[in-house]
Amino acid sequence: MAPPQPADFERALDTAAPHLTPAEHQAVQAELALLREHGLRDGLLPAMRRIADEVPGRLYRGSAEVLLRMHEIAGSGNHQSCLSSLPIVRACFDLDLVPRADGPARADLVVGRGHIAPSFYAEWYVRGHLPFLPLATLHQGAMTGVVNKEWGFANTMRYSLGVGMAQAVSRAWELKRRGERRKVVCLAGDGEMHEGVTFECVRFSDEAGLDNLVVVIDANDKGIEPLLKPLNRDYLRSYFRTVVEVDGGDTEVVRAALDELLELPGPAALVCGTRKEGHSFRRPGGATAAKPTFASTGGRQLARLAERSGRPTAVFTADLAARFGLPGQVEYQNVGLAETLGVGLTLALDPEHLKVVATDAMYYMDSLSMLTEASTSVRNLMVLAGRNWGAWGGAANAFNLLGLVANTRVYEPVTPGEFEACADRLEREPETVHVLSMVDARFDEPPVDCRDDIDGGVWITPPDEADEGAAVVTFGYATTLVAQANADLGLPHLHCAALNPMLPGGTARRLARFRNVLSVEYNGAHGGFGEWLRNRYLLPVTVHGVEGDIDNCVHDIQLRRHGMGPEQLRELLTSFHTSPEARYAIART
Amino acid sequence: MAPPQPADFERALDTAAPHLTPAEHQAVQAELALLREHGLRDGLLPAMRRIADEVPGRLYRGSAEVLLRMHEIAGSGNHQSCLSSLPIVRACFDLDLVPRADGPARADLVVGRGHIAPSFYAEWYVRGHLPFLPLATLHQGAMTGVVNKEWGFANTMRYSLGVGMAQAVSRAWELKRRGERRKVVCLAGDGEMHEGVTFECVRFSDEAGLDNLVVVIDANDKGIEPLLKPLNRDYLRSYFRTVVEVDGGDTEVVRAALDELLELPGPAALVCGTRKEGHSFRRPGGATAAKPTFASTGGRQLARLAERSGRPTAVFTADLAARFGLPGQVEYQNVGLAETLGVGLTLALDPEHLKVVATDAMYYMDSLSMLTEASTSVRNLMVLAGRNWGAWGGAANAFNLLGLVANTRVYEPVTPGEFEACADRLEREPETVHVLSMVDARFDEPPVDCRDDIDGGVWITPPDEADEGAAVVTFGYATTLVAQANADLGLPHLHCAALNPMLPGGTARRLARFRNVLSVEYNGAHGGFGEWLRNRYLLPVTVHGVEGDIDNCVHDIQLRRHGMGPEQLRELLTSFHTSPEARYAIART
Repeated sequence: MAPPQPADFERALDTAAPHLTPAEHQAVQAELALLREHGLRDGLLPAMRRIADEVPGRLYRGSAEVLLRMHEIAGSGNHQSCLSSLPIVRACFDLDLVPRADGPARADLVVGRGHIAPSFYAEWYVRGHLPFLPLATLHQGAMTGVVNKEWGFANTMRYSLGVGMAQAVSRAWELKRRGERRKVVCLAGDGEMHEGVTFECVRFSDEAGLDNLVVVIDANDKGIEPLLKPLNRDYLRSYFRTVVEVDGGDTEVVRAALDELLELPGPAALVCGTRKEGHSFRRPGGATAAKPTFASTGGRQLARLAERSGRPTAVFTADLAARFGLPGQVEYQNVGLAETLGVGLTLALDPEHLKVVATDAMYYMDSLSMLTEASTSVRNLMVLAGRNWGAWGGAANAFNLLGLVANTRVYEPVTPGEFEACADRLEREPETVHVLSMVDARFDEPPVDCRDDIDGGVWITPPDEADEGAAVVTFGYATTLVAQANADLGLPHLHCAALNPMLPGGTARRLARFRNVLSVEYNGAHGGFGEWLRNRYLLPVTVHGVEGDIDNCVHDIQLRRHGMGPEQLRELLTSFHTSPEARYAIART
Repeated sequence: MAPPQPADFERALDTAAPHLTPAEHQAVQAELALLREHGLRDGLLPAMRRIADEVPGRLYRGSAEVLLRMHEIAGSGNHQSCLSSLPIVRACFDLDLVPRADGPARADLVVGRGHIAPSFYAEWYVRGHLPFLPLATLHQGAMTGVVNKEWGFANTMRYSLGVGMAQAVSRAWELKRRGERRKVVCLAGDGEMHEGVTFECVRFSDEAGLDNLVVVIDANDKGIEPLLKPLNRDYLRSYFRTVVEVDGGDTEVVRAALDELLELPGPAALVCGTRKEGHSFRRPGGATAAKPTFASTGGRQLARLAERSGRPTAVFTADLAARFGLPGQVEYQNVGLAETLGVGLTLALDPEHLKVVATDAMYYMDSLSMLTEASTSVRNLMVLAGRNWGAWGGAANAFNLLGLVANTRVYEPVTPGEFEACADRLEREPETVHVLSMVDARFDEPPVDCRDDIDGGVWITPPDEADEGAAVVTFGYATTLVAQANADLGLPHLHCAALNPMLPGGTARRLARFRNVLSVEYNGAHGGFGEWLRNRYLLPVTVHGVEGDIDNCVHDIQLRRHGMGPEQLRELLTSFHTSPEARYAIART
């Protein structure tokens, strides 16, 4: 991900403007003027520090208030998680654990609870190290909501819960190998401690004698949903030489306990009991969105499916029941933050029952071996893979990887009819795992869909018989984006719901008659939909897909980062439409 | 995997013949005659039972002796693991836990320590339920060395350690949901309990109140290598309501303890202290192979690399130091059976140090998210991915998946020069993770290699200028197989070391002049080397690769299962060579 540029701040502030108080507006304008003046040539953090020095007044004294304002302005995020960790964050500042520009801190701080980055921003703000300006751009393409080295953290997190613990253990192992006495402090959450990989880290810390590791656990008894049981303290005691439990709501108490653990031989764990309300921030009194996200219709669709098929149904989710709209619609088993287990629990059920696993697409990436075990032995298995790609980013290639697993087929339904057609296909072919990409976005359904041939394609804009110019083929959600962009261009437009379509001969031959075929997918280009068309049909398709890393920002901005904004697509289609000669894009890259 | 056929037994017995005693030979011949007579129409197990009934004499009274003979005949396998679990297996028989045809057993037995299948076979033999015939075919394409429903187990294991625990927990969850009182017994190993996924299972068993689960752990203090520390008993006690520890070498003691646990509310763990010598069986006095496997030269090549590059080097392996020939060559950190941790430990080391992770390719499949975290943040990372595909099978698509991860490149070097060229490429492009497929087989090096252009191709058999007929392009290890098959055919033959080659323009244009191009890879066809050639160069390549599941049998037989035996390849090349007209294999499947 490229570092944010002044223009990113400008754009993000446009979005923030309606939510700023007059005082905030005034401060931000002054800071923006300085940003325009100085630019970011000296680096992001030095530039921010300089602005903070030149606009020294603070709008708020307390970081909790700042945190609330950040989320009110952003309109999204994990406000409650940030709040529950705030006293821990303050203690880290007080104990000189937070990385700083002017020399090494007292210990190496790894923030495994990556989404509490805003707590640090809020503290940096009240301590005068950051201006208000970036705080008003949270999640909007300038300031990331997840820890990132660019914003002064010692670690960057991208994909996986539990990564922070691995980063901390890696660091502790390295310091020990070098014979350095500095300690590593890792901030973790109790939900995260339920991931298999954190166990591997904890176990190894003990076995490798990493006496320089201190894990601080925010124990709010919740992952995204409430934990089935509180984090097992005996488990912690079985691996950590010292385990101390304190009231995590009291900065003083946390500071004193952590201060002491920094001097004792480890590995040590400090369990901070905290309270967390709801997981995701909702703007109070904000308009209830007229339309649900497609992903959140999952529960309703599963309920209908269970009724239609008459099959007893077992649904497993790794803490994402809300995302898929399960509560009140179907019975489900929450397995906590443990995606491999979620897949594994399908292994020995009745072959004729319907099994559904539901988590974010990126979380399957650490479970593909378990999924292979399931795809070669479990019948009637439907995998719902959430596609968020919001503040946490995501894996652009997740569906391509899922599609490569033996005996899987990947679909991205964009209408209830297509969801149903996928389920019907699973009924006909129960030994193939059907992976359904469930898009966590609100969009207009296309006027026609692939329900009658879920593996084929359907013309959104049919070609004239004589037209041999340019056409566009799109996958799933990208269809809705392209349809918008193509509304008044009228380029022939074929929609597919399958990542690896099996086009009827007539459709394939019709496509082959066009001089230029463009494929569009909001999905990793490498190994994806467009490359499949090239490989299978040897069509010189020009592939437009996600080429880079997924960013940490809200959906609308994310889209534009990958050239998927409707106006960007319109431009792309136009250039295709009007191109006078054939482009045989033999080598894509 | 298709069930074994009579011909598979015949073939396997040919291999076994030189290793049989006269008495064994006589018994097996009598049994074979019956197999020929009756066939397998009634199913594998009923047919075997019938033969055992008709040839009731037993060659050996004790199953330990049978187990030894099975491994002496096979010449490979995990004899010591089987032996350390034998008393546990006997106790399972005595307590009526082993699945049988004539009604439900006392509990559902899931064998998570999948490679102890031979212990069950040996017991079935001495108890008169199996003839000697299949036992003499272990690992040779008829009888599998890993648990499989075909051979009477309640579960089949394919890929992943830790899967057995997931299968057991899945079963226990299901029985509890149905209100059935039957218990689930899972046989696990202490090494396996170090995998993250087993923690997820153990934790969930407790949290979901699975009082019907009994885990029996063979605690021999070893995975493949000795454990860093013995399995943490306090950890077990923190999650299992009852933990009992007994001498696992005494069948009586194990039986009594397990009998009692079957009556108590669970979840419960029975820790059986056992002893295990070396992990893999070597035929005593067997010829020491003249040539090492390519994989086992890894340590030596890493040592040379560390010296050449001058970079401090950190090597992590998940219990596979021996496979890669690390001992005595380079310092390494064994992380135990915990592959995700192995990758995770590279996350926070010095950017300029060389990091090497070494495990089997299939074990990365549950760590691709962690690998993505590494591939987007770690410099100078080399991933050694063992390619065994022997008795445990493997993931045919593993390298294709690894190649799809962001910022990776996959190579399959077949000469030290190519290994070095991969390392040099990593030096030039340290932000790309270089994945090296390390083939666990002995083979003759090709006469030329890709060391001068590791991303390109080199002609093993150059074409005549005028030749526009047929050519073959091969990836890595397949080059050595095809070179053998092509020796006297003389088909133009291009070798690539890169899974996703970037052919120089001249080479690509030369290929395009052939009417027929065949690609051969001992690798999953879907998303692999041949499909890459089609996708990137729009060449109508006919793809020959691994299409199905990987079997559990020794390498030579494995090759033939996938059409990669030299005589099979010879036939394929011949048909290509002599084909009079072009075959534009537009749609591969």
